[in-house]
Amino acid sequence: MVVRKAEVFREKQGINLLTGHRVQRIDPDNQTVSGTTREGKDFSAPYDRLLIASGASPIVPDLPGFDLPRVMALKSLDDGRKIKNFLADTPVKTVVIMGMGYIALEMCEALAALGITVDLVKPNPRFLPWLESAMAQAVKDEIESKGVGVHAGHRVECIEKTGEGLRVVCPDLTLNADMVLVGIGVTPNSHFAESAGLNMSVKQSVAVDRRMQTSRENIYAAGDCADAYHVVTGKKTWIPLALRANRAGWAVADNLSGKNVEIDGVAGSAVFKIFDLEVARTGLNVAEAIEFGFEAVEMMITSASRAHTYPGGSKLLVNMIADKASGRLLGAQMVGREGAAQRINAAAVALHNQMTVEHFSQTDLAYAPPFGPTWDPLLIAANQLLKKM
Amino acid sequence: MVVRKAEVFREKQGINLLTGHRVQRIDPDNQTVSGTTREGKDFSAPYDRLLIASGASPIVPDLPGFDLPRVMALKSLDDGRKIKNFLADTPVKTVVIMGMGYIALEMCEALAALGITVDLVKPNPRFLPWLESAMAQAVKDEIESKGVGVHAGHRVECIEKTGEGLRVVCPDLTLNADMVLVGIGVTPNSHFAESAGLNMSVKQSVAVDRRMQTSRENIYAAGDCADAYHVVTGKKTWIPLALRANRAGWAVADNLSGKNVEIDGVAGSAVFKIFDLEVARTGLNVAEAIEFGFEAVEMMITSASRAHTYPGGSKLLVNMIADKASGRLLGAQMVGREGAAQRINAAAVALHNQMTVEHFSQTDLAYAPPFGPTWDPLLIAANQLLKKM
Repeated sequence: MVVRKAEVFREKQGINLLTGHRVQRIDPDNQTVSGTTREGKDFSAPYDRLLIASGASPIVPDLPGFDLPRVMALKSLDDGRKIKNFLADTPVKTVVIMGMGYIALEMCEALAALGITVDLVKPNPRFLPWLESAMAQAVKDEIESKGVGVHAGHRVECIEKTGEGLRVVCPDLTLNADMVLVGIGVTPNSHFAESAGLNMSVKQSVAVDRRMQTSRENIYAAGDCADAYHVVTGKKTWIPLALRANRAGWAVADNLSGKNVEIDGVAGSAVFKIFDLEVARTGLNVAEAIEFGFEAVEMMITSASRAHTYPGGSKLLVNMIADKASGRLLGAQMVGREGAAQRINAAAVALHNQMTVEHFSQTDLAYAPPFGPTWDPLLIAANQLLKKM
Repeated sequence: MVVRKAEVFREKQGINLLTGHRVQRIDPDNQTVSGTTREGKDFSAPYDRLLIASGASPIVPDLPGFDLPRVMALKSLDDGRKIKNFLADTPVKTVVIMGMGYIALEMCEALAALGITVDLVKPNPRFLPWLESAMAQAVKDEIESKGVGVHAGHRVECIEKTGEGLRVVCPDLTLNADMVLVGIGVTPNSHFAESAGLNMSVKQSVAVDRRMQTSRENIYAAGDCADAYHVVTGKKTWIPLALRANRAGWAVADNLSGKNVEIDGVAGSAVFKIFDLEVARTGLNVAEAIEFGFEAVEMMITSASRAHTYPGGSKLLVNMIADKASGRLLGAQMVGREGAAQRINAAAVALHNQMTVEHFSQTDLAYAPPFGPTWDPLLIAANQLLKKM
């Protein structure tokens, strides 16, 4: 995360940065934006070119108790500071985290490291539904082994105050907590873009082309509010992650200043650490592949993070997804104590090249006993997957 | 390494495995091989198809003292056992290792872990000459910080016996040792292939096509004795490493049994661990790129193994090599305490696809703070390299 004071933009870079100004309307025909300031005054500003970089906001359900002071969402740096300060000022022994995505799990690890008892809760009975089921189970086992409660399949109905603490109420489950964190996902801040008649895309993100231009010629959008092409499907997707947002920011800056820069799509690569496990993915999972019309097959293999002759290795699970019709590699997933995080990128690069599984299986991946078996786990998965194709 | 007893081949698989039979001649016109047995008897065997899988042998200089009992080379499992037994039976305090390649450095680490003082010596004054010089220096610093003597630029003239020990003599340097290990490289066991009139290739390896067929239709070769195509240059190369040997073994088995399997070339990917450093490479270095006629440029950057906000990160050096004329990525090298070994494979896959640096710079590599900065070190290197192109 990059943090700079507003003064730096004003004084060093000559940018008229208006903090405390909330844009509520875009008028594309008159090329103005308007809204209200923090002090409640109306304002209006003209533009030649407009960049929408309004990001995304955490989803907070409109249910009883979510406005209680000890219920917090996590997205911005400010949210993080608020949580940190609360933990410093208040004795917190138990936390319920709603959601089981990347942010929820990273928070889970951070809180557990402070000695706090954590319960995770979400309505979908499948833990990490995007991950091959045996691999998802391995991650669940790891989390539970650390004393975290994983309550998948429980829809929170309300949060109630109980003396000093809180009670998270589901139809058949009640969890007590000193604090509740809401980490059930984010939604693009795109309402004013929609009102202005801009084309919208997946999950209400703002539709942009490869130059980050919206459906209006002089309006651009970049970051978590904007969509992207998926390199595997060629279709639009919305995957609000840091690298894409950052990359789009650089490209749109070029385009706003008169250059003509196109950027590639996303592969949907992501990784997170949860306790001692690395969990990584790129491309489509088998359900997504079927949804996009591929003749999808997958192969999950168990390999090792080091050569069997080298001490200290651990299990490395690899799942690989392919299209039987074209032979193309569509995605890969990995779970292990070591060797998953950076290894996934070999598959990500393959996806950017629309490689077939057969071609990928022929790649010359580096081998040494401390880092894997002679046949890299990715190659073992590819070889096994080929037998199903 | 796969170790199976000869009886298993004979009894379980019906293979007439003749151990103790050294082939000395191939007669391609009469389709026979002949030689002598361990007991000194002549033998001859006919073939319909012949596979040469004779591997490579360590190079041992023809200089005085290299036949002394405490001078050992390392290539085969037997060599390893011999060294291990010697160390178990004999008090060894100091070892001189000739050579500074992968095997020499891995031996250096293994011996240092046993508390043995190690000196490395070789004639070339450049340590790891294939690696960008600042990166090679970083590896040298690491090795020297562990108390290992690195004597690059010293040509050994002879080894002398001194009471119980040995003395390694160079013109301006003398090193005492209880044992000397020779790790100056290997050479293909290809003499009988050459005598039989088969086409030879780089460094006297046996020339094979993508089906592992030699210049004679019914003779194949695979493993460390055979050459390969390089995916970057398209030209023949000889890089005797485990994955290629293993892959060629599978392919040639198919082709010998009547299938028609072609395999891709090698990218020259390799990795090794030396003390706390991972050193990885793929593709060409800048000198090789120039030698093969590319308009080569390189860019070395210093990045980090984790996001700067995440504790425990360390420096990660990345060097990237490209062809200015075509924009193609030609190679990459990495040195760091973590995150180099598997990360190199993203670049290796790019090489198999003849990717440009620009296209590679657009790849969606997975990011999370424990595993790297938002822009993966490979992407940072690509972005910086683009500015030079």
